[in-house]
Amino acid sequence: MTGRGRFITLEGGEGAGKSTQARRLAAALAAAGLPVLRTREPGGTPGAERIRDLLLGHGPWDSVAEAMLHFAARREHLVRSIRPFLEAGGWVVCDRFADSTLAYQGAQGLPRDVWARLADVALEGFAPDVTLVLDLPVEAGMARAAARSGADRYERMGMDFHLKVRAAFLAIAEAEPGRCAVVDASRGPDAVFAGMAGVLRERFGVAL
Amino acid sequence: MTGRGRFITLEGGEGAGKSTQARRLAAALAAAGLPVLRTREPGGTPGAERIRDLLLGHGPWDSVAEAMLHFAARREHLVRSIRPFLEAGGWVVCDRFADSTLAYQGAQGLPRDVWARLADVALEGFAPDVTLVLDLPVEAGMARAAARSGADRYERMGMDFHLKVRAAFLAIAEAEPGRCAVVDASRGPDAVFAGMAGVLRERFGVAL
Repeated sequence: MTGRGRFITLEGGEGAGKSTQARRLAAALAAAGLPVLRTREPGGTPGAERIRDLLLGHGPWDSVAEAMLHFAARREHLVRSIRPFLEAGGWVVCDRFADSTLAYQGAQGLPRDVWARLADVALEGFAPDVTLVLDLPVEAGMARAAARSGADRYERMGMDFHLKVRAAFLAIAEAEPGRCAVVDASRGPDAVFAGMAGVLRERFGVAL
Repeated sequence: MTGRGRFITLEGGEGAGKSTQARRLAAALAAAGLPVLRTREPGGTPGAERIRDLLLGHGPWDSVAEAMLHFAARREHLVRSIRPFLEAGGWVVCDRFADSTLAYQGAQGLPRDVWARLADVALEGFAPDVTLVLDLPVEAGMARAAARSGADRYERMGMDFHLKVRAAFLAIAEAEPGRCAVVDASRGPDAVFAGMAGVLRERFGVAL
């Protein structure tokens, strides 16, 4: 293991428990003595949070413009927060990253090659060390999301949309098994966390 | 001439008189019986104006993120306003367009290939029918700009920066003579307008 830390992203559809599990994972890494930054997208820096406000509070945006806003925010997040923290040896736990743009904007018609070209410009090859895809059936995820207050724009989209998003995340995981691991998120929070911890133990040798 | 209108952009450094000349040009085209949209960048649509507020009111932005914000705004402007107006046969006069991003962000270190890749994604080959580069010595332009109130971020940059911007616009014009025409903007407003009108007469056969 070099001096560089590890970049862990959590991905998945609505109601998969990403935020809860990100908190839990960050706490466990910190308890194991590792310096941890827990963050989320879109957002994560003051500039990126302002872009987040535009993305969530305004629109509808043209799909290419929307993807550019996501990657502008991601670039700020990467350059000003994620990369410096990793280079200082820290571990970063990020709730959503580039895969979410592919899954969500792709499900709304963004061509994959537009996503890939923007990712190339913004990330210059940078990628997570591991991506935990929290997967569960769409019906179960939507029922969980509906139980929370303040459904956002994506939560209000129809079943077809969410089926596409789930399929997109599973396709990403299948195409990049070296980076991604699918975790069954239909179980209770302890079992989901145990699944994530198993992946991190196997890949990085950390016991959580 | 097809049913599509003409897309005219005005480019140049600070104090070149772009806004004044854009107003005058739009009025003259309208007086000649043409449907005209006068607009400016960054901005031009509600979403793009919000991105403009981020660009001008916040930052500093990472240079790649900043270029992405410019092209996200430009994409909105193009798709929702410029292109529909042109396709309906209208003429568009736009104060700044993609060349300004190359000249201004390039002078701050944005690599040309990043600009080109973003332009490709956002514009998909779309380009102005003519670009009028209003050129004048940097000292003269800065003196004019200083006489106005509320100097913006770019107006406060040093002489070296503005020399780079001027050189960049002239290099663009030299590289694309079929699209660009350099107009000597060191003269009075009537002479500058006559220079612009001469270009439009020659290229589009309009008498202004």
